Amino acid sequence: MAVYQATASAPVNIACIKYWGKRDTKLILPTNSSLSVTLDQDHLRSTTTSRADASFEKDRLWLNGTEEEIKEGGRMATCIAELKTLRKEVEAKDAHAPKLSTFHVHISSFNNFPTAAGLASSASGFAALVASLAQLYALPVTPSALSRIARQGSGSACRSLFGGFVAWEMGVKADGSDSFAVEVAPQSHWPEMHALICVVSDDKKGTSSTAGMQRTVQTSELLQHRIKHVVPARMDAIKKAITAKDFDTFATITMQDSNQFHAVALDTDPPIFYMNDVSRSIIALIVELNRASVAAGKGIKAAYTYDAGPNAVIYALQHNLREIVNLTMTYFPQSQAFNDPFSLYAKGQGVPGELPLPEGFNPAVAKKFEQGAVKNLIHTRVGDGPRALDAEESLLGSDGFPKKS
Amino acid sequence: MAVYQATASAPVNIACIKYWGKRDTKLILPTNSSLSVTLDQDHLRSTTTSRADASFEKDRLWLNGTEEEIKEGGRMATCIAELKTLRKEVEAKDAHAPKLSTFHVHISSFNNFPTAAGLASSASGFAALVASLAQLYALPVTPSALSRIARQGSGSACRSLFGGFVAWEMGVKADGSDSFAVEVAPQSHWPEMHALICVVSDDKKGTSSTAGMQRTVQTSELLQHRIKHVVPARMDAIKKAITAKDFDTFATITMQDSNQFHAVALDTDPPIFYMNDVSRSIIALIVELNRASVAAGKGIKAAYTYDAGPNAVIYALQHNLREIVNLTMTYFPQSQAFNDPFSLYAKGQGVPGELPLPEGFNPAVAKKFEQGAVKNLIHTRVGDGPRALDAEESLLGSDGFPKKS
Repeated sequence: MAVYQATASAPVNIACIKYWGKRDTKLILPTNSSLSVTLDQDHLRSTTTSRADASFEKDRLWLNGTEEEIKEGGRMATCIAELKTLRKEVEAKDAHAPKLSTFHVHISSFNNFPTAAGLASSASGFAALVASLAQLYALPVTPSALSRIARQGSGSACRSLFGGFVAWEMGVKADGSDSFAVEVAPQSHWPEMHALICVVSDDKKGTSSTAGMQRTVQTSELLQHRIKHVVPARMDAIKKAITAKDFDTFATITMQDSNQFHAVALDTDPPIFYMNDVSRSIIALIVELNRASVAAGKGIKAAYTYDAGPNAVIYALQHNLREIVNLTMTYFPQSQAFNDPFSLYAKGQGVPGELPLPEGFNPAVAKKFEQGAVKNLIHTRVGDGPRALDAEESLLGSDGFPKKS
Repeated sequence: MAVYQATASAPVNIACIKYWGKRDTKLILPTNSSLSVTLDQDHLRSTTTSRADASFEKDRLWLNGTEEEIKEGGRMATCIAELKTLRKEVEAKDAHAPKLSTFHVHISSFNNFPTAAGLASSASGFAALVASLAQLYALPVTPSALSRIARQGSGSACRSLFGGFVAWEMGVKADGSDSFAVEVAPQSHWPEMHALICVVSDDKKGTSSTAGMQRTVQTSELLQHRIKHVVPARMDAIKKAITAKDFDTFATITMQDSNQFHAVALDTDPPIFYMNDVSRSIIALIVELNRASVAAGKGIKAAYTYDAGPNAVIYALQHNLREIVNLTMTYFPQSQAFNDPFSLYAKGQGVPGELPLPEGFNPAVAKKFEQGAVKNLIHTRVGDGPRALDAEESLLGSDGFPKKS
């Protein structure tokens, strides 16, 4: 008997223009457009295997080896149903196509980064799910069409259907048909765009982004101004900056928009805080790094951005990463050696955290923290979109259940 | 020979609707109206003695015993010059009035709270200066007229010319003649309004409010929305709440406006942070206190507000203070016993920090901090406006120089 199975991986994306607020919570239609950089799957990825089989008794899903309930009418069920509907269209047009839409599916998904890293896995996870099912069903659709489906799983997942620099255009229609992701520029346009993720320790359980953004929509008067007047101009400006590979403008807008997202979170009633004192200190370091660099005529070197948590993502061009890693490790000593995928500290290049700080840098802008304040540093870069993987990378065994690891 | 001397004290005020942004930095004209509660001088005050004498060679000022330069064209010089001009008018109308306007002055000022407490002393300081000179010069002017002068020393000082609940109406004229403070309600209208000041320890030197607010005016797009659309409605609503002694509305607006002030500070480029993790935890405690209280049908019990620093001021009605002090001391243990001016913990009332938390309160909303995170707690209440003090309270000796303490 034929095995109908496909495996795909999908990347994480980190927004420069932030998505915060839904105008339709069921369809996940946003109150403003957003823009992100897709990060390299060589470092961070979700991988998903989907199989359809006539013998399966219901749709089932395993996440990192543990079964998760697929709630009726829930986001997962919606995504699967949408993809089955598209499969039906394929079958209607081609009488020879196997009737996979009538089979239940088993889905196994795995994130290669620990949940404890504090990185949102819902974007890469839903993107990998949609990509693997689209592959299984041999759907003749564009990544934008798939992004419209992934969006209904988790809003920002729609941006993980593309590599490079990706816009999620909010759209205006009530049915969400014009709310999807598009490529602004591919990975190859600006491969020097690197990112350093600072995983920040936090005592507190933050407000979930789903709950938080709706409270902001309901209570923040500033959000309305952001939506109507600020974001549209920033979307235009940052797209131009990406096209022109203008890092200064890209960085300035990215930092401003991170700040404004956290500002509207704070303007919420009761207020929402995602950044903590460690996050604030990382901002102070980057602000000072840029100040000293601009004063020396060298322009902006780094852009911080924060999602709904205390972790910093620092965007910078590759040639500045060595200095930025050194700066970060000087103030946030690590318990283990820096994982150095780009060989920043190859022989003779010194030890990160022990090199001199940049010329003109005022070391008093932050205090040196204890080991553990920043738990981990991850160096990555702009990456490609979802990948179709070989059968040997399958996460499901021949019995249709997750392989034991 | 006659001694021409007067001593006055003036109160601290803490805004509920925040002043943040100048439309004229020389005249200190604000971009929005603001509203504050004047705190009791029995607890926190600035005291100033001014003397005019023909023998003095120049205007001189001592602050807490140390001489400060009166810079030509500076804010202090402007206030003194304005008051001398008003004195000239008095002398022009009354030929018998001594020509004090032609004499130099010696001024000695003292704050009864340490600078280390992190409480802004410029408001009470300039208010006491203006009040003492107005008394010395026997000026036939209203507190609002004096507030227009104090405003030019330090914007928020204008609100310390009144007791009770005070609005600073921003005005529209370019010369600032319509930008002054007015009484919304006297102390006697709502004497149950109490305040608990939590003095929070901070490693970092914050951005000065003078520099910070101008950076916000220049770079925050959200500030413009706040100025034009949010503050006018809040000013109306909070005045009505004060008139009606509606604590729920007063507290809701006070917390929202504190949050929004810090939101526009964060929307500034580079961003400004005044609150730290301790400040955030105090907010979490008050939010939970109110949530549990509202759930029990008892309404809002407390309102936090933060100025340009990490200290919290918690407004609450007198009968709720005992519970709030206990809550605060439970999470922020103190090195010394609670200074209890209103005998909240008279015999049999327990020990603050050791009583049970309120019914239904979720203790997990914040962690318990180490001693020192909140350095000091000050319990005070709504108070009166500037006081004329007796000659025996003079801070200047018979030689016209500060008394040695």
